[in-house]
Parts: sequence; C-alpha cells; structure tokens
Amino acid sequence: MNFTQRLRSIQRTRNSLLCIGLDTDPRRLPRVLHSRNAATLFNRRIIEATQDLVCAYKLNLAFYEAAGERGRECLLQTLAAIPPGIVTIGDAKRGDIGNSAAFYAAALFRDATFTSCTVSPYMGEDSVAPFMEDPERGVFVLALTSNPGARDFQYLPVRGRPLYELVIGKTRRWNRKKNCGLVVGATRPIQLRRIRQLAGDMPILIPGIGAQGGDLASAVRFGCDRKGEMAVINASRSVIYASAEKDFARAARTEALRLRDEINRYRETAL
Amino acid sequence: MNFTQRLRSIQRTRNSLLCIGLDTDPRRLPRVLHSRNAATLFNRRIIEATQDLVCAYKLNLAFYEAAGERGRECLLQTLAAIPPGIVTIGDAKRGDIGNSAAFYAAALFRDATFTSCTVSPYMGEDSVAPFMEDPERGVFVLALTSNPGARDFQYLPVRGRPLYELVIGKTRRWNRKKNCGLVVGATRPIQLRRIRQLAGDMPILIPGIGAQGGDLASAVRFGCDRKGEMAVINASRSVIYASAEKDFARAARTEALRLRDEINRYRETAL
Repeated sequence: MNFTQRLRSIQRTRNSLLCIGLDTDPRRLPRVLHSRNAATLFNRRIIEATQDLVCAYKLNLAFYEAAGERGRECLLQTLAAIPPGIVTIGDAKRGDIGNSAAFYAAALFRDATFTSCTVSPYMGEDSVAPFMEDPERGVFVLALTSNPGARDFQYLPVRGRPLYELVIGKTRRWNRKKNCGLVVGATRPIQLRRIRQLAGDMPILIPGIGAQGGDLASAVRFGCDRKGEMAVINASRSVIYASAEKDFARAARTEALRLRDEINRYRETAL
Repeated sequence: MNFTQRLRSIQRTRNSLLCIGLDTDPRRLPRVLHSRNAATLFNRRIIEATQDLVCAYKLNLAFYEAAGERGRECLLQTLAAIPPGIVTIGDAKRGDIGNSAAFYAAALFRDATFTSCTVSPYMGEDSVAPFMEDPERGVFVLALTSNPGARDFQYLPVRGRPLYELVIGKTRRWNRKKNCGLVVGATRPIQLRRIRQLAGDMPILIPGIGAQGGDLASAVRFGCDRKGEMAVINASRSVIYASAEKDFARAARTEALRLRDEINRYRETAL
C-alpha cells in the first residue's frame, strides 16, 4: 500500500481529515505536569485523548531539537505512543544535496519512524528524491506556506505563473510512486482552489488553522479532492493548549472533536 | 565583533580561506578506529591535524542526525574539540515559520554552539530572521547550490533575472547586523563572478570542491571580495577521506595544506 492509499484508508476509517500538530513548547506545558519528561507525558495524554479523532499527528522537529537530548527522547517516545495506522508527519522541511538528503531520510524514516515528512523544494529534484524512494513513506513538498514570508519568493512570477505553481508541477512529475503531497497554508484560500486543480488527487497538508488565523471552511472546501478527501487539516496550538490546567487532555479532545465535526460538515456541503 | 568581522579576522590570522567539512559517514571511517565513538575520535584527530590550516569547520547535520543519539553526542563533542576563534558552520539548511525557526535557532546556537549556520530561503524573511538576531552568529542563505537539482528552480527567470539573484538581493537587505552570507556552489564559476558583484563584501560559503568536481581556481578568483577574502572554500570528502588507513589524519593534513596553499596562490594572482 503506497502512502497515498494509506492516508486515504485512515481518513475513511476514522472519518476524519484532522491532523494534530504536537508542537510541544516546554514553556507552555500545564503546571500540573512537573517532571523531567513532562513534554512526553503531555504528548501521551493528548494522543490518548484524541487518537480516535485524527488521521495524522504532525511533529515539528524544531521544538524537539531545541530541547536537546531530552527533546530527542521525547520525540521517539511520542512516536511510539501513536497507534499504528495513524499517519505521522515529521515536519522537518529538510532539503540538501542527494548524498546528504539520503542521511536526512534515514534520520526521519529509520532512526525516527515517521511515515511521512515535509521537505523544502529550493535545491530541486536530487535534494528530495531520497525521501521518495520508499512508496510507503510520504513526502509533503512546501508549495505555498502560511507565513508572511511566503510573499518574498513563492508568488514571484515565472513565465506568467507564480513560482509555487512550478513547484507543484515538478512535484506531480516526481510523484512516480504515489507518495508525494504538498504543503499549502490555510491562510491562502483563494490560491488553494486552483492548487487542488493542479494537484490532482495528491494529498495536501494544510497548516495554519487556529493560531495562524487560516479559514477552515475554505481549507476544507477547496483543499479536498473530488471524493472529499486528501486534505490533511492541521491544528496545533489551538488544540494542544486548549487548556493550561489539569483538564488539558479533555479540553484538547473537546476542541479536536469540534474541529473534526466542523470539517466534516464542510466536506458534506462541498460535495 | 559581528560575524563578518570575526570571519575576516580568522581568515587573516590563519591566512586561510579553507573550510573543512566534517561530513562524517560512519561507513567510511578508517578500519583502525573501531570503538563505540569512532566518529568522534575520527573528527578529533582530523581537527588536531588541520586546525592551523583552516578558517572554519562545517558540520552537515544530516550525517549526525542519521546516527541518532550517538550522532548527537558526536556532534557536541566535535564542536567542543574545535579551538575558539575558528568559525563553525552548522550546515542545517533549516527554514520554517517564525515561531518554529526560533526553536531551530535555539537548537543550533544554544543547544549546539555553532557560530553560524545555513538556511533555506523558500519561506522568506520571517523564516530566516530568528537566525539573524544575534550579530555574532552568522547565517549563510542558500542562493545557487552545487547540485544538479539547482536547475529545477534556482535559475528560473523572474522579471528577466534568475531566482537566485532575487534571493541575493533580499539577503543583502536582511543583512542589517552584518552577519549574513550566501551559499554558492563551486560548480557555478560563471555565475559566481556576478554573484560576488551583487553580494558586496558578504561572506560566500563555496562548497563543491573535490568530490563534486567544482573548479577551485574560479571559486577563489571569483568568490573573494576586493581584499581577497570572505570566500569560505569548503572541501569535505577529498580531505577527510584522503586515506582510509591509519595515516588518515596525516593524509588529511597533507591534502588540507595543499588546498590552502593552492587557494592562496589563486588569491595572489586574483588581486
């Protein structure tokens, strides 16, 4: 089963397009968790409380790397706590010459055991190819991101089309093993509609809901394929920090449930 | 002292533009080193044998991350073995939304203690700004890379100019604290001449000598500023794997000495 099939399968089984971003900032943990491995306990509780509501969990590696050795342990233990079948996304945004990219792929897919990761397209095909070798492992290529800096380069006109459209065209060509997807910010609803047309049925990871202010209705309506699937709607801070008190896991579940259901309502009206 | 001054200072003190890339592949270590921390021993011996010949050491994080916990230890111990004053480059090619980029900067500059790093420009200003906050820490922005995939996006015409020239223009504007530089592959000699004109006196990290086949004479002649400085010429595999036998450190020194002197000859003829 290639990555695209696997993602579709879990989205159907769970009836959910929701991805929770475990961007666990040690400074924002509930005060009730005070132990050496508080971040790991926090992630485990969030996963236990939400695993029936999601198709994926996304771990942004920046948060774990900043915590050094402890962060590395937390990352591995968090991955181990995620039930098999649920997609895991190593949000690493890597990209390097082929020789080095192969080592990054080993770090993400073998040392850690992510089922997919994010990559940056700037260095071109040989910098992303090593991540795409195994059809069971997915690769989300940055296309049009949710942040203000997206304006600096991604919209630049190249032969009458914005640069991100060329990235999408290349990614479609690289998608020989049906394991490639795109990253498109939820803050880009107008572009997302056309991007879905260009992307065919490739998965689109859509961050930027919640703290970044992206529009959920448009993300779902424009991001899904013709079957109302293959959009992966990520929310991080709005879910995992829904409460800073000892009810944090229940509060995260309440917010995740609300998001999942809201997403599903938009899916119905889109079809 | 800002990063640019610091780099110039060590290049003058050492009379060297040479940077050695410690891209230490566990499968390529000399057979005489067989211990749990062979990679660390290897790096220490290479550093001891070459530290008077270089202005910088560059560690590509891919190699260390692929080795998991052991790789992390090796990275920290290698950094600790590099004498103060010598510039260290965390070749990480990171780039993420501002909030996450701040965590990556903490990982590279505080958890590890690199004096500089490489970043990818695709996500724009807020994705690189957190790396540029401390004037003493340098940031090399990917402009025109040495690999075949550079053709996919970096040369694309934007308003009559290749995309990488727009990256250079933006980087000059971001360089308010005099701590920004560029990455330009040694396999791009024709473009390098114009890039130096566009870059003013910003540092240019030039990988691709040796195993990747870049042209050393052009890298030096076109990469240096008007004072014959500020090019950082990186060689990795050709130096550290100069011998696979027990004379590996001496062989690395011989090759590093040859490179430093060849670089200095080209500097003289360029001025």
